[in-house]
Amino acid sequence: MNILQTEDTICAIATAQGGAIGTIRVSGPEAITLTDRIFKPVSGKPLAERAPYTLTFGHILTPEGEIIDEVLVSLFRAPYSYTGQDSTEISCHGSSYILQQVMQLLIRQGCRAAGPGEYTQRAFLNGKMDLSQAEAVADLIASTSAATHRMAMNQMRGGFSRELAVLRDKLLHLTSLMELELDFSDHEELEFADRSELEDIARQIEQVIHHLVDTFSVGNALKNGVPVAIVGETNAGKSTLLNALLNEERAIVSDIHGTTRDVIEDTMNLGGITFRFIDTAGIRETTDTIESLGIERSFQKLDQADIVLWVIDATCAEEQYRQLADKILPRCEGKHLVIVLNKADLLSSADMDTAASKDAQFDRLKVALPDLSEDVCVLSLSAKQKEGLSQLQKQLVDFAALPDLSQNDVVVSNIRHYEALSHALEAIHRVQDGLAMQLSGDLVSQDLRECLYHLGEIVGGTIETDEVLGNIFKHFCIGK
Amino acid sequence: MNILQTEDTICAIATAQGGAIGTIRVSGPEAITLTDRIFKPVSGKPLAERAPYTLTFGHILTPEGEIIDEVLVSLFRAPYSYTGQDSTEISCHGSSYILQQVMQLLIRQGCRAAGPGEYTQRAFLNGKMDLSQAEAVADLIASTSAATHRMAMNQMRGGFSRELAVLRDKLLHLTSLMELELDFSDHEELEFADRSELEDIARQIEQVIHHLVDTFSVGNALKNGVPVAIVGETNAGKSTLLNALLNEERAIVSDIHGTTRDVIEDTMNLGGITFRFIDTAGIRETTDTIESLGIERSFQKLDQADIVLWVIDATCAEEQYRQLADKILPRCEGKHLVIVLNKADLLSSADMDTAASKDAQFDRLKVALPDLSEDVCVLSLSAKQKEGLSQLQKQLVDFAALPDLSQNDVVVSNIRHYEALSHALEAIHRVQDGLAMQLSGDLVSQDLRECLYHLGEIVGGTIETDEVLGNIFKHFCIGK
Repeated sequence: MNILQTEDTICAIATAQGGAIGTIRVSGPEAITLTDRIFKPVSGKPLAERAPYTLTFGHILTPEGEIIDEVLVSLFRAPYSYTGQDSTEISCHGSSYILQQVMQLLIRQGCRAAGPGEYTQRAFLNGKMDLSQAEAVADLIASTSAATHRMAMNQMRGGFSRELAVLRDKLLHLTSLMELELDFSDHEELEFADRSELEDIARQIEQVIHHLVDTFSVGNALKNGVPVAIVGETNAGKSTLLNALLNEERAIVSDIHGTTRDVIEDTMNLGGITFRFIDTAGIRETTDTIESLGIERSFQKLDQADIVLWVIDATCAEEQYRQLADKILPRCEGKHLVIVLNKADLLSSADMDTAASKDAQFDRLKVALPDLSEDVCVLSLSAKQKEGLSQLQKQLVDFAALPDLSQNDVVVSNIRHYEALSHALEAIHRVQDGLAMQLSGDLVSQDLRECLYHLGEIVGGTIETDEVLGNIFKHFCIGK
Repeated sequence: MNILQTEDTICAIATAQGGAIGTIRVSGPEAITLTDRIFKPVSGKPLAERAPYTLTFGHILTPEGEIIDEVLVSLFRAPYSYTGQDSTEISCHGSSYILQQVMQLLIRQGCRAAGPGEYTQRAFLNGKMDLSQAEAVADLIASTSAATHRMAMNQMRGGFSRELAVLRDKLLHLTSLMELELDFSDHEELEFADRSELEDIARQIEQVIHHLVDTFSVGNALKNGVPVAIVGETNAGKSTLLNALLNEERAIVSDIHGTTRDVIEDTMNLGGITFRFIDTAGIRETTDTIESLGIERSFQKLDQADIVLWVIDATCAEEQYRQLADKILPRCEGKHLVIVLNKADLLSSADMDTAASKDAQFDRLKVALPDLSEDVCVLSLSAKQKEGLSQLQKQLVDFAALPDLSQNDVVVSNIRHYEALSHALEAIHRVQDGLAMQLSGDLVSQDLRECLYHLGEIVGGTIETDEVLGNIFKHFCIGK
């Protein structure tokens, strides 16, 4: 099936199972005709003869005349509908039996059951919205907080698209200046924009794209949670700490070194901020292939985290610092690092007193790690006894402080957009380099076009393949 | 709060969580005004100036002007709405965050969050439907099969109410004949309907009520499943049989006698029929108080069942027949009884051959139980090894054969209606007795009025207390 097809008529149950009301959406050239075949108004004309944006009360009937339900039908005519096509919405009693029966009747009349996101895809293909707006519809439905709701709503209403349109205009202007130079470069008598002016425009473009790319860490943290990697040696108590933070038995814990081989992720809300905790395999020398792969993934997760919890067994703290400092510390640049001295409950009371004093801990660490930065936070706790957790939670909230978004802030939260913007940023950097190195206009133009192409990818509308659209819309719910 | 109140404006999320679309219903004298305060049409007039049965596209806004969602609002004006009041339905994106925000905005404007079934209750109180029709709305939403759907739809559309109205007319006619006789009984010159004519009418009424009461076993079986009690001695394998039939570990099984103390129920569909399997505590002499209570409940469940599975440990079959025959057999009159010889896998192969032959089993049973009826079905199986189950399932379907309902069959499936009808039946029986015994007209009239009262309870409309309505509507979902 060609997913770009919009010429058949589709139907889908657009509400979740179990409510008082259930809605079935029908969209396509025959939406009204096909609905009329299974629907009889209590009085008056068939739907085909009614005005758009009206509601009609009546019955859904089988071909044998049995009443399936008393319903209200909403009527929309192209192009004034969500999909831009003729559409109906049948509002039934929320019984899954009834909804299934109505679906079957529609399908028997020639409708096709819609795939995930197919309504929004039609809206996109019919020019009712661009691709980034279409993606925002799914984000809007998935939004669970004021911040994610605002990001999605702004994007759906075209805030991001407008910012991209401005960028695009600037790029086109730059391109035309470059091409003018190219076309008439033999005519020495003509004067062109000088390179410093071009460099100026390129710099402005670079700044905007750079800013958008930078917003992704906030957007992603808001949408998916602030990534917190829990790393450390085997048996330091990482999984116990994850369970204690989540307050449930999410990860399997045991005394056996290397119990956790998979990366375990789960989210939790602390102080209004969603954190995505990532428990990783313990880092040690191993000959076990599966465990090695796990350790490799631990380092990858560490690289993606905003906050790193380096869990250390407090009973052999100095040894563990020395073992892993050269592996972990260099990877924590630009991240927030918390050194968690776990198993504090196993320390003797003298050690405890030392452990309890932050300065003393830091001093001891300094001995082991002379080059430890002053920004590192050191905390002592017992994950097993759930002691000292609140201090860690407070620290996480402090580190994660996210900006307060206003309704009009453009924040990139979609990984596809982030990737396209990153490619656009690389291309504009090449443009800047080319201008600086006085490269010929046609070489620079090539990079400019590439930059334009990547920005165009975000809003779509040129040449989307089935695959690209398929990837975008498969994450939607059915009926949207 | 007086639940009969209809003068405030209520709002509720009427769709289940998690769909593409979410709908909020608003109903009450201020429904349109209050919706207008949080809704701004994209173009044109506010809702208050629009025609009913129209859809308006626009935005839900906070008082600060932030857009919460792009929505479609359906408009209804009293009395042409579900509740009979002014109403709106706000169709939003199906995000629970958005739906909650819209609810909060409505509540801030003065709406009250509706309780379960409050919309349907208002429809009843405003005379849009009678009480039995209102109850059918909940049944319709809960319907999961063609049969339950048909029963509920017929009842919602007034099929049952019309049948009751005919009955009521006949009763009123009979009452007036009786009262005429009463008023003029001194005037011997006047001629009255003779008693045999009155008896005739009473008999017709009795037959109709009797028939309706009788339909309840079918209606209840369709709605709640055909009740199948699993009874027998401790450790005969009743719970293992339940698990095998349900194909899941529903009941805890062990080798310990008396493991099951609670009554465990679960439904399953076999051959299109829903069965409600009821696992009971094993029957034995015991001094354990809790177990005794369990055994008492086993007998109660046996009494309520249509089909009884008497599970017997095949390795000590005769002994078990003798132990329980006098307790179980008398309670199985009018029910379908299946004697299940369980643990067939533990029999020696010689015994197995005997066990495998139906006649041989029956013959052996006959020795132990000379008075065993020929209708009893005897089956040999192993619940643990899941052998011989399909034969039992087939037998259950044969026993349960339910009539094929047509769209217009009136079938009582509501326990409240069943109880009211049972009381009406008792009253009409007293009327018949009174007529037969030539009791005075005023005594008979009293019973006639009681019969009328009980039939009236079903459709409601006279004097419903908060308690009666509260009991009926608390089982509805919110938003209906």
